[in-house]
Amino acid sequence: MSDINFKQLEKAKKGAHFEWQDLKDKVKFDQDGLIPAIAQQYDSKEVLMMAWMNEKSLQETLQTGRVCYWSRSRQNYWRKGEESGQIQVLKELRFDCDGDAILMLVDQTGPACHTGRRSCFYTLVEGDQATITSEPLIAPEDLYKK
Amino acid sequence: MSDINFKQLEKAKKGAHFEWQDLKDKVKFDQDGLIPAIAQQYDSKEVLMMAWMNEKSLQETLQTGRVCYWSRSRQNYWRKGEESGQIQVLKELRFDCDGDAILMLVDQTGPACHTGRRSCFYTLVEGDQATITSEPLIAPEDLYKK
Repeated sequence: MSDINFKQLEKAKKGAHFEWQDLKDKVKFDQDGLIPAIAQQYDSKEVLMMAWMNEKSLQETLQTGRVCYWSRSRQNYWRKGEESGQIQVLKELRFDCDGDAILMLVDQTGPACHTGRRSCFYTLVEGDQATITSEPLIAPEDLYKK
Repeated sequence: MSDINFKQLEKAKKGAHFEWQDLKDKVKFDQDGLIPAIAQQYDSKEVLMMAWMNEKSLQETLQTGRVCYWSRSRQNYWRKGEESGQIQVLKELRFDCDGDAILMLVDQTGPACHTGRRSCFYTLVEGDQATITSEPLIAPEDLYKK
């Protein structure tokens, strides 16, 4: 099974197991060494945010059970909640069929968004209007004092 | 309001409206002119897939109410379900706080995944194992005959 890849998994039956060790080198990072990672609240199923991981932040996330992204703007590891206290505890991590996107079920403490909102996806486009759909849970000024 | 951007929306109140016409030029496409788009089933909240859109596929999706991606592998428009019949009807389209990711609530007919599975995210990584979590609803051979 050491030459397993995502293409081969397509035909696998439900419940089939493979060694992560053999699969992890087949994860498709982009030209910058990054992969998109979606965070979904495990119980409410709300999609909270999408950010990026590199190989090491993915490894850290799996090992520690706390979500660590790669910040493209800061070019550094972004241990979610390190500054704000609003951590993401990993419940489940899944790859898509091509191995080029990650879905994480997480338990998010408070807001996932730097604006203080629960989810980053608060701008709804409908017809010719964009509408703000939620209020901050915490003012961003208070969020980054912690 | 013609110079509105995503940064300014951060402070907007719930229910505030803006002209999509003024915001759409501020959407952050990457160096290839693409933006990641997540599709979530509107009622079950299952995350079905993540793919990419360019400016025109986004525009088409908003205008027609049927999801159109940009296929990076085929370098062409990918009107979801065109070949397989498994269309995605758009219920809601949202941008994240930075305007560089899209979340769509959709009504997916049958499987979203080319493997015939409902969702593309069927490979669960836990400890040293990767496990297949679902079976195809339809065999892929039958999916692409339609």
